[in-house]
Amino acid sequence: MVSPELLRRYPFFAMLNDEQLKAIAMVAQECTYAKGAIIVKENMPANKLMLLLDGDVDLIYSGGGEGAICNALVGSIAPGEILGVSSLIEPYTYICSARNTMAVKVVEIDGTAVRALMQVDKPLGYVLMCNVSAAVLERLKYTQVELAAARA
Amino acid sequence: MVSPELLRRYPFFAMLNDEQLKAIAMVAQECTYAKGAIIVKENMPANKLMLLLDGDVDLIYSGGGEGAICNALVGSIAPGEILGVSSLIEPYTYICSARNTMAVKVVEIDGTAVRALMQVDKPLGYVLMCNVSAAVLERLKYTQVELAAARA
Repeated sequence: MVSPELLRRYPFFAMLNDEQLKAIAMVAQECTYAKGAIIVKENMPANKLMLLLDGDVDLIYSGGGEGAICNALVGSIAPGEILGVSSLIEPYTYICSARNTMAVKVVEIDGTAVRALMQVDKPLGYVLMCNVSAAVLERLKYTQVELAAARA
Repeated sequence: MVSPELLRRYPFFAMLNDEQLKAIAMVAQECTYAKGAIIVKENMPANKLMLLLDGDVDLIYSGGGEGAICNALVGSIAPGEILGVSSLIEPYTYICSARNTMAVKVVEIDGTAVRALMQVDKPLGYVLMCNVSAAVLERLKYTQVELAAARA
């Protein structure tokens, strides 16, 4: 478990009430990963939602080991941002890998447990899915700009 | 207004109950646009959610008229998919433009009205935001693959 107050400091969780924050804090824990670790793996079942506390993470698309694409950089995650959004979005499969460029500290949240909480508490589900959508849209916007630049 | 039965045929709306479908159908209308129209404009307030019935739409990033980027193709929308997801996601601003490659038929839904409905009916908000997230994540996945290929 982590402190609900830790979560409350971050915009992603700031809108939740005390009870909702506590329920999520109960299924969360702080973890550290060494430089170069792969903390999320493309095409694997997405069960972990992470909040990045310290460090930077690269998003990598492997290309599945076939064709010309090999571990291309397709994005990055900064402190305060969430990682592993696929753990809350069907079909619950990570779309890319995440690799630490340095040692990182994260809050690791049991995505399966959060999905169950949202099923029971729809207002919680509504707030979290609004926040997840905003995070994914922001990432899409960044990726579209990068793609436009790569094609220019 | 459109028929609630028209909406029910599409996966994005299929999970809604009769009352929810009817409320959305009340703030929707069918529209057609000629080839080459710009039906969504980058950086403009996002007030329209659209369901594409017939035709294809290109997603274009203009680059704001500065630098090397100029109307780069960054995605496309196929029949049955939704367009204008930014109308349901803060900060409610379109992230790119949408241009018809042919005449298209859409259901145009008042995004502001849908946001108000979701505020009152949180279970509706939860279902719709789950579907919106899935649509945006699918688009992010496609864009990451395109970016990886462009960088290979």
